[in-house]
Amino acid sequence: MARILIQGGTILPMTSRQDICQGDLYIVDGKIAGVFPGKAPEEIQGPDLQVIDGRNKAVLPGLVNAHTHAAMTLFRSYADDLPLMRWLNEAIWPAEAKLTGDDVYWGTMLAIAEMLKSGTTVFADMYFFMDRVAEAVAESGIRGHLSRGMISFGASAEKAIVESEELFQRWNNGADGRVKIWLGPHAPYTCTPDYLKRVMELADRLGTGLHIHLAETQTEVQDITKQYGKPPIQLMDSIGLFERPVLAAHCVHLTEEEQNILATKGIGVAHNPESNMKLASGIAPVESLRQKGAVMALGTDGAASNNNLDLIEEMRQAAFLQKVHLLNPEALPAYAALEMATIGGARALGWDDMIGSLEVGKRADITMVNLAQPHLCPSHDVVAHLVYSARGSDVDTVLVDGKVLLREGKLTSLDESRIMEEARLRAIRLTTDSPAQ
Amino acid sequence: MARILIQGGTILPMTSRQDICQGDLYIVDGKIAGVFPGKAPEEIQGPDLQVIDGRNKAVLPGLVNAHTHAAMTLFRSYADDLPLMRWLNEAIWPAEAKLTGDDVYWGTMLAIAEMLKSGTTVFADMYFFMDRVAEAVAESGIRGHLSRGMISFGASAEKAIVESEELFQRWNNGADGRVKIWLGPHAPYTCTPDYLKRVMELADRLGTGLHIHLAETQTEVQDITKQYGKPPIQLMDSIGLFERPVLAAHCVHLTEEEQNILATKGIGVAHNPESNMKLASGIAPVESLRQKGAVMALGTDGAASNNNLDLIEEMRQAAFLQKVHLLNPEALPAYAALEMATIGGARALGWDDMIGSLEVGKRADITMVNLAQPHLCPSHDVVAHLVYSARGSDVDTVLVDGKVLLREGKLTSLDESRIMEEARLRAIRLTTDSPAQ
Repeated sequence: MARILIQGGTILPMTSRQDICQGDLYIVDGKIAGVFPGKAPEEIQGPDLQVIDGRNKAVLPGLVNAHTHAAMTLFRSYADDLPLMRWLNEAIWPAEAKLTGDDVYWGTMLAIAEMLKSGTTVFADMYFFMDRVAEAVAESGIRGHLSRGMISFGASAEKAIVESEELFQRWNNGADGRVKIWLGPHAPYTCTPDYLKRVMELADRLGTGLHIHLAETQTEVQDITKQYGKPPIQLMDSIGLFERPVLAAHCVHLTEEEQNILATKGIGVAHNPESNMKLASGIAPVESLRQKGAVMALGTDGAASNNNLDLIEEMRQAAFLQKVHLLNPEALPAYAALEMATIGGARALGWDDMIGSLEVGKRADITMVNLAQPHLCPSHDVVAHLVYSARGSDVDTVLVDGKVLLREGKLTSLDESRIMEEARLRAIRLTTDSPAQ
Repeated sequence: MARILIQGGTILPMTSRQDICQGDLYIVDGKIAGVFPGKAPEEIQGPDLQVIDGRNKAVLPGLVNAHTHAAMTLFRSYADDLPLMRWLNEAIWPAEAKLTGDDVYWGTMLAIAEMLKSGTTVFADMYFFMDRVAEAVAESGIRGHLSRGMISFGASAEKAIVESEELFQRWNNGADGRVKIWLGPHAPYTCTPDYLKRVMELADRLGTGLHIHLAETQTEVQDITKQYGKPPIQLMDSIGLFERPVLAAHCVHLTEEEQNILATKGIGVAHNPESNMKLASGIAPVESLRQKGAVMALGTDGAASNNNLDLIEEMRQAAFLQKVHLLNPEALPAYAALEMATIGGARALGWDDMIGSLEVGKRADITMVNLAQPHLCPSHDVVAHLVYSARGSDVDTVLVDGKVLLREGKLTSLDESRIMEEARLRAIRLTTDSPAQ
């Protein structure tokens, strides 16, 4: 029996703001066994108890990156400040066409290293070579919600359906339950309604959910509306997509009616503020969706459009962007942003039975932030500190499934130098002779 | 003769993008004595030469925080997510009323610790007890552009004029030239035109410039327009304010004509994107001002409205905010944001003869960023890395006036623990029994 006590921390269980306390957190065999305001009972002491010093640290649920394309770290800072279609056509797509399974493995490892170091314990990924992504998840100890990207055009349409089922059979609930497989129909503009219906049937047969991009740009909304007579969310609703778990990335351009659909159907909305800003996609109606009771989560999107995978920064960005957009400093308060990055994300990924809050019985996915630093001093309000002032690099300790994967800022399960060197060499190969830059 | 060689770094002189190179940077007696692409000449070697390893590091001019209220670190995260007037009336002003000179000294020291650790080598400050701020600058080794806040109402109006002149006489060009004193008339809504004219006369007599808040909120623009028949920038232009060096903070709400005035008169514009977002002030027309050739700088504003003093984050924010606001991913490219935080800031502070770029003859104010980290890998584009992916905590080494003030992320001139403890105790005293929270 493996027993861990995190002692004397500022615990943010993310059950309610009132539950924030100074106290101890007890872990047994990878599960949370107790949250004790003040001190844990004496009887849990013993020579086998591993104690982690929580003093001057915030102890919170591991952060949930609800939308990314992890291996795109290989294209970080490759081609910036370009219009979307030039960026895709001239830089990203030619480089992606050269990707091998090994590239995706190492690019994902680089993403995992970065995410663990900045407090993320689970990520929702949509990309290619997903078996290799699952391998990286299994080896690193992080948690992964994985979907193979599916588009309905060309030869890959059928292949995507076959391979998605194979991926599900091979990996769902794999790596000690740290891998969850959903299906990944890319978007309404890359998947026809008929194709989406086949994907829905497969999802229902497997008993799983869907991860999809929806309403990311004005162009998408215009094109879909022109082609189908209704905007993306309404179109998806009309074909019955929302009758099963759906994780919808972006949701930037929405009618009031579409916002109501997302909220009523309990769709997980993965908001990606930095990607939406950098690619100039627009500002999602996050505060409005939140007020309507939608399940709100946060993602980084891929590193090529961010350009980091820092969820703490993303929380701040989400809050700030709503405030300035609505000219209302009370919009999306700090605690709401923290909810999006934790329990909201877990709900959006269909995983809140196991993670997203510090409650007895849930898996011990935990992030500890070092508060003893000038930019987090003095200590008026730990929630405001985490959202408005902290950085990913303030994360000191990370546990996933009760295993310490980051200790004093150092990765315990990964060879960081090797990963960076592999990524560096592969990035050079992938982008050499590409037309852009 | 003190000689330093920074060897084998990625040097960003900020003279032009084409000048970025791998090379060596040579410092003699606090001044830049050579920028050498490749290797410095052999003859500068010698037993007295101090070598700093620049490998895997970006070497850039120290960052310029062009607008802050440093001691407001004491109110960091004290009262967030509130409407502006409640925030001021119920939280900030009652707490500020209790400030002593010692509080300002220690609050400023906390700000300096945070700024040095995140690569800022000079800050433009407007606050009270500015003698104590100057002391903190002198002792810490940072560079300070200091202004005593002046308002024209009540007994403090006259006092502000007298004390500003005293401050100038005592401190301008003090601390080995690291202190510059400008006058600090607070804003058009707190200083009448007649009072501003007296401040202008004093500035001209002393041969110095003015640091002022302009056009920060819609309310200010409406009130000023109602009272004087013209908006703030036009009002300032009509009373002749811009006929001397002026550092104008915020400039959020501007007419086209006012943008032209700022650009034509060479006014330094200190853009504070995170403060403008958090307080929901609005989005400044930064890209438009830049296209018109205005002198553009970046500031954090005080920590209470940010809530950190991280210029790297501010660069990213400036770029992202323009892109999403204009729905144009090409707006405010990474290099332009880096210019704002370095040479643009130096120009805005009237200090570009001495700092802001790595050129022979300028003072050696230098920031080195550790690039060997997962979130800055692979290495496609160092400028994009610095602006879109780096964090303040990636700063490894900082020199001001040729003195190493940060080495491997550790402060060399300040007792960080003592500063945090002083700030913590003072923050408790200042905010206890205040009506808010």
